[in-house]
Amino acid sequence: MAVGKQLAVRIFPDAETDLTSLENGTARFDDVQYLLAWRYPFGLLDALPNLKLIISAGAGVDHVLLDPDLPDHIPLVRFVDRHLTTRMTSYVASQVLFHTRRLTEVLEHQRNAQWLYVCDPLPETVRVGVMGLGELGQASASTLVSLGFQMRGWSRSPKTIDGITCFSGDDGLVPFLAETDILVVLLPLTPQTKHMLNRDLFSQLSCTGRSAYLPGPVLINAARGGLQNVPDILTSLNDGTLYAASLDVFENEPLSAEHPLWSHPRVVVSPHIASVTSPHRIARYALKQISTFEAGGTLEHTVDRMRGY
Amino acid sequence: MAVGKQLAVRIFPDAETDLTSLENGTARFDDVQYLLAWRYPFGLLDALPNLKLIISAGAGVDHVLLDPDLPDHIPLVRFVDRHLTTRMTSYVASQVLFHTRRLTEVLEHQRNAQWLYVCDPLPETVRVGVMGLGELGQASASTLVSLGFQMRGWSRSPKTIDGITCFSGDDGLVPFLAETDILVVLLPLTPQTKHMLNRDLFSQLSCTGRSAYLPGPVLINAARGGLQNVPDILTSLNDGTLYAASLDVFENEPLSAEHPLWSHPRVVVSPHIASVTSPHRIARYALKQISTFEAGGTLEHTVDRMRGY
Repeated sequence: MAVGKQLAVRIFPDAETDLTSLENGTARFDDVQYLLAWRYPFGLLDALPNLKLIISAGAGVDHVLLDPDLPDHIPLVRFVDRHLTTRMTSYVASQVLFHTRRLTEVLEHQRNAQWLYVCDPLPETVRVGVMGLGELGQASASTLVSLGFQMRGWSRSPKTIDGITCFSGDDGLVPFLAETDILVVLLPLTPQTKHMLNRDLFSQLSCTGRSAYLPGPVLINAARGGLQNVPDILTSLNDGTLYAASLDVFENEPLSAEHPLWSHPRVVVSPHIASVTSPHRIARYALKQISTFEAGGTLEHTVDRMRGY
Repeated sequence: MAVGKQLAVRIFPDAETDLTSLENGTARFDDVQYLLAWRYPFGLLDALPNLKLIISAGAGVDHVLLDPDLPDHIPLVRFVDRHLTTRMTSYVASQVLFHTRRLTEVLEHQRNAQWLYVCDPLPETVRVGVMGLGELGQASASTLVSLGFQMRGWSRSPKTIDGITCFSGDDGLVPFLAETDILVVLLPLTPQTKHMLNRDLFSQLSCTGRSAYLPGPVLINAARGGLQNVPDILTSLNDGTLYAASLDVFENEPLSAEHPLWSHPRVVVSPHIASVTSPHRIARYALKQISTFEAGGTLEHTVDRMRGY
């Protein structure tokens, strides 16, 4: 796309789109070459015979990879953005500090107008483990280093990161969990990671000693709801396998008003806002990728379909 | 104090101490040469005719300096400690992130089981100003730099600190406040700073524009309750001059159960626990200072009585 070239944009769905034609498979949008999308309805790709590139408007592409009509030959890129990373880092830091400063208890005492001391652990005695060491995981871990926490990291393939003790693969998972007091999850959702955050995993946390004044292991999931088994989280919170949790993502969003997570005293529930993308930044990113594609260059952040991210 | 030398320790008050004799001025403890204390009762120094050194068990010495019997010739040192600094830094970071992530609203929506988006400001658009650039202020400001905030600092005398725009003195206060969205107070309490955190000061905050998604200025006071005018804080919160506050210190502690601060929806009240000192660390610090003193060396962190810190 040369400088000054016009790019026609079609918003989907708009008032003119006949959604029935999409559902019954007769829709056809011959003019669409590039798709910038987030959780689009399955069936859409069948209506785009001239599609050349799919750009996910989010860091995760699990929804796209579940599309049975996803053509093998069309490149798929994920959204990676400095602001997205900064926001995720601030969410992770806010929740790690919320639990290490034991704000659940501080706020409860405040509600009761009770002047009661709460002892909080010294950051250097707390081991924070980040699962998933992509852009978001690495940036979050590095920021937690500067806050004084002992950092661990786990990823599928081996990594070396300054200031972070890294573990990898199936063999690395047990030792990683044993040295983790606060588990921060920034993994992609793939068939391998689905429901990985279960009771068996929680029971392996923080087994090699524990920081004084941190009552137990903490789970922070800012990645995908499909990674977690919610009944296991509730059981683990209630029997002390977990002390607390911060959950920003859920398998079914929005979380239903009756869900027991809302009222659990040691869970912080947020509505998938850990890192919200600005439309302006996504548009700029999409334009850059399209320009690269049209110039025959190498796309950034291309998804490896076998890995799933 | 040579290695291996025994140091006799007297705990005050203990079961044998006749407190009446202290009150009527007849008490006398000739054997006490060093005093390690925190908010000791006035009158005590009169009973210590052979005192050579006073070591405050806290970073602030405002209470000691108010003692009418404080002799001019006895050196007074403050407690400065790496753990104390780390804890204060984690408190400050936890509260800055609490308010920038708008957790008051997130937790309110959770209590109501409402899936409602809350937009939070990008850290680099938020200007955090630290008043008081001693050990605690400088360390807190540096950590906030690594979290991506725009940092400002204000101190009595000019300072130069990497990554922080520094202001100083009376002339620097107005421009400092105008560029501050979140005010972190780590000042000593002196006659000059008493009740400095008042409505006039709050109304000067954040006057040169404001970050999108931060509803208004925030006050975080982790220094001394005597710095703040609480009725002004409440008025300012209620008319929007302040959006929120985190207060760890109060002029009268414990805060009475009837105090309106406990129940204010946008105030985080904690019971003077931002940075709690461990007795072990204080004892080690006191021994080090006494050793230096006995060896004729230069004491660290000696209080300048004219400055008040």
